[in-house]
Amino acid sequence: MARDVGALVARAREGDPRSVGRLISLVENAAPELREVMAALAPHAGSARLIGLTGSPGVGKSTTTSALLSSYRARGDRVGVLAIDPTSPFSGGALLGDRVRMQDHALDPGVYIRSMGTRGNLGGVSWATPQAIRVLDAVGCDVVIIETVGVGQAEVAIASLADSTVVMLAPGLGDGIQAAKAGILEIADLYVVNKADREGATQTVRDLKSMLTLGEKRAPGAWKPPVLSTVSVKNEGITEFVEELDRHQAWLLESGELENRRRRRAAEEIEVLAVTALRERMGDLSGGDLLGELADEVLAGKTDPYAAADRLVAAVEG
Amino acid sequence: MARDVGALVARAREGDPRSVGRLISLVENAAPELREVMAALAPHAGSARLIGLTGSPGVGKSTTTSALLSSYRARGDRVGVLAIDPTSPFSGGALLGDRVRMQDHALDPGVYIRSMGTRGNLGGVSWATPQAIRVLDAVGCDVVIIETVGVGQAEVAIASLADSTVVMLAPGLGDGIQAAKAGILEIADLYVVNKADREGATQTVRDLKSMLTLGEKRAPGAWKPPVLSTVSVKNEGITEFVEELDRHQAWLLESGELENRRRRRAAEEIEVLAVTALRERMGDLSGGDLLGELADEVLAGKTDPYAAADRLVAAVEG
Repeated sequence: MARDVGALVARAREGDPRSVGRLISLVENAAPELREVMAALAPHAGSARLIGLTGSPGVGKSTTTSALLSSYRARGDRVGVLAIDPTSPFSGGALLGDRVRMQDHALDPGVYIRSMGTRGNLGGVSWATPQAIRVLDAVGCDVVIIETVGVGQAEVAIASLADSTVVMLAPGLGDGIQAAKAGILEIADLYVVNKADREGATQTVRDLKSMLTLGEKRAPGAWKPPVLSTVSVKNEGITEFVEELDRHQAWLLESGELENRRRRRAAEEIEVLAVTALRERMGDLSGGDLLGELADEVLAGKTDPYAAADRLVAAVEG
Repeated sequence: MARDVGALVARAREGDPRSVGRLISLVENAAPELREVMAALAPHAGSARLIGLTGSPGVGKSTTTSALLSSYRARGDRVGVLAIDPTSPFSGGALLGDRVRMQDHALDPGVYIRSMGTRGNLGGVSWATPQAIRVLDAVGCDVVIIETVGVGQAEVAIASLADSTVVMLAPGLGDGIQAAKAGILEIADLYVVNKADREGATQTVRDLKSMLTLGEKRAPGAWKPPVLSTVSVKNEGITEFVEELDRHQAWLLESGELENRRRRRAAEEIEVLAVTALRERMGDLSGGDLLGELADEVLAGKTDPYAAADRLVAAVEG
């Protein structure tokens, strides 16, 4: 097995798309080889730029991702795309539904595109997403684009995964107000108003800018999120978009924020895995029913949830 | 202190609204007395009916809650309302914003209304919500209505807190499709299409019913969620709504599902508290920096997140 995983990682790093897909599948399915895969990848990860792209359905995320892909490919970068679809239970290398626009890139060996379904995980980002990003990073992608439908929680989850988080809007979708209500305006590093040739685009940009100004309380040297306009389907505004992403990357490096974010992200990832292991342990205690017994005591009014939790923690600690 | 908490609980159970408010504040602020409060309440909790009401902004949740309140009051029930506002950082007994419609009930001693802000918790339901429900339950409310704006995750959170979950829609908001996309259609016990006198209401009801039929895979004896129509502002359809809630409550009791749900809820509540305690412990390890050290090792490629998590778990277990 060790030899197989080693060989698989080597082939994936040489650019074999099927080996990359195989690695992601092992991670997604929490295969027995998962730990071995992660250990084999560890020395190679950490050099990719991670760009998160989110927004409501219909803002043009796939078209924009495709346009970004072309730009990065033109300068020779290897690019990975994780298209996360919270409405789909299906994962895989196949290009589904509106990913069809990315088919221009399907035969390009410098591009790896993967759909991940997360049905049943309303956050929109499954626990396997950080591991899948790590695979793409370790096999040599210079840029990894994580694209997901924005449903409030998802934006926040993606912001904790990416170096640069892009929130996309389009005119006439009432996104600005929705975004403000959901309290997600703070998380973007860049705003892109796509379909900027449509009626109402100028208004959307203006609304967004004034909302951002209202909320402004920035420390000196802090990043000021720009509001960009694109017509991705015509490739308009993409050059500026890529330039602003580069400017943000430069700021991240310079300010030390890149290291901060990555350190926080690694700590969160470790913590989630540790908590998952501890929860499993809780479920196994007393032949699998300590938690059930404690719940019954709470329901009978014999104890309260805090006292019950104390006993559970004590049992986990042995 | 012990005497104070005991006296406070006694006064709250006699119906003193300020004492109820004080108890919820102690819980919300995680006051030092929190554990004592929960222990004092434990023997008294468990008899309230918990009704969750959720839906997009503008569907008329507050108006509907107010109409429900009147119905339950008319039959002599004591009623508590937790109006959870994910866009507000403010909590308290004050009636804020669109809660103004509930002011009809502000002077009724059989009604306790409380706004809870959850800003910074996009799930829309804060960790303190189950504890606040427990307070209202233990001080003698026969019915507790938990009202929250639906933002995907919130619906799911509320469904895990309530005995009966009501998803509200209104014509023309495109809610049906949004709901289906977000995968939240499965969680409701009752659907209410409010503003049923508006154009498009019949279509909304029809769309909803056909979507529900599509997804239908029900075991024999299972609950079939009804689709109701109301015009809450005119009190139309409220009698039927209350009857359907009663019918659902009867089904819950009869089928054993009430006990299942409450047991699952208690287990979840205990688990969340235990996990929180264990996370705090993780943060305190090695003078507060074991997690940071492990994160640095992962960033340096010296270890992978899984191996790091193993070490963290081992450290927690001492």
